[in-house]
Amino acid sequence: MLNLQSDSSTRWLRQVEENLDEVLIDHAHCEKKAAGTAMNLLFAYVDNTELCREMTEIVREELEHFNLVLDLLARRGVRFRRLRPGDYGRLLNDLVRKLEPWRAVDRLLVASLIEARSCERFCLLRDHLPDRELADFYGSLFESEARHHSTYVRLAKSFADDQQVRERLEELAAAEAAIIAEGCPLPRMHS
Amino acid sequence: MLNLQSDSSTRWLRQVEENLDEVLIDHAHCEKKAAGTAMNLLFAYVDNTELCREMTEIVREELEHFNLVLDLLARRGVRFRRLRPGDYGRLLNDLVRKLEPWRAVDRLLVASLIEARSCERFCLLRDHLPDRELADFYGSLFESEARHHSTYVRLAKSFADDQQVRERLEELAAAEAAIIAEGCPLPRMHS
Repeated sequence: MLNLQSDSSTRWLRQVEENLDEVLIDHAHCEKKAAGTAMNLLFAYVDNTELCREMTEIVREELEHFNLVLDLLARRGVRFRRLRPGDYGRLLNDLVRKLEPWRAVDRLLVASLIEARSCERFCLLRDHLPDRELADFYGSLFESEARHHSTYVRLAKSFADDQQVRERLEELAAAEAAIIAEGCPLPRMHS
Repeated sequence: MLNLQSDSSTRWLRQVEENLDEVLIDHAHCEKKAAGTAMNLLFAYVDNTELCREMTEIVREELEHFNLVLDLLARRGVRFRRLRPGDYGRLLNDLVRKLEPWRAVDRLLVASLIEARSCERFCLLRDHLPDRELADFYGSLFESEARHHSTYVRLAKSFADDQQVRERLEELAAAEAAIIAEGCPLPRMHS
């Protein structure tokens, strides 16, 4: 359902356990960036009414999650701060084709894959984090990421036909799996 | 309370009456742009916690209004489309100083003045539009614009002292009144 071509490794779970506060701060940034991505898509394709409606809803949800992560950080006494971003988002966005309508398709599919990977990792955190509050928190978030994944894939189909979208999604998912397999020394939600 | 240095003229009300559909479409774009401005401020000043919280709330409200205006356009059979923007926002943003913290102060105060002018004009539309549905609609929106105005001015005070903010707000409000007095041939919410 998530169209991912790999599962996250235990290497990543170890990285999270050893750098929990930093990953939580990165999670807040991820929610903010996800809201920013949806807002950028709204601005870019404002004449697509369905996209407009869906993007306003995704922005709303991502900012709500951003606030929830800020609350969580505050409760744990972790100061929210800027972090050097990992390479994941940049490497994926480098794959976006320049010409429309392929640019729209790729932007939406890249967004869909980031949501899918977040969903997969939130499930892992729900199942493996020893801290009950955190495990429950991630258990409460993963469903909306799965929903956003589906929404982005569906919207891509308003810019190209089903088969073109399916084939491109497979290509991008293969690239995404390779980026995840490479990993990133910075402990991040998508490292 | 709104810190504006002029009232809108009847010239603008005539422009609205003669080009109602176009102004309504522009209103949708204004709500979208207001959400985008708040999102940009969130990204730029993410280590200011109060600003983060307020911006997420303003983004949420502006996008809700954006959807309400889209609903209104759909009910009236007016197709939402791209419009050439008027000069108002660009002329105001040209006044933003380049160096921090003055850049933050100016971005927030420019946003505050745009909200103030929207508030003033929504009140005029409430009082003067013969169409009851539209008049009621604008009556339901103006309060949040006034609230956003106050929020932006208060947040500017987290980047400079009260007197500096007051003086700069006066300068920018004078510039804003001059831009409004000049007017714009394109029928827009801020023409």
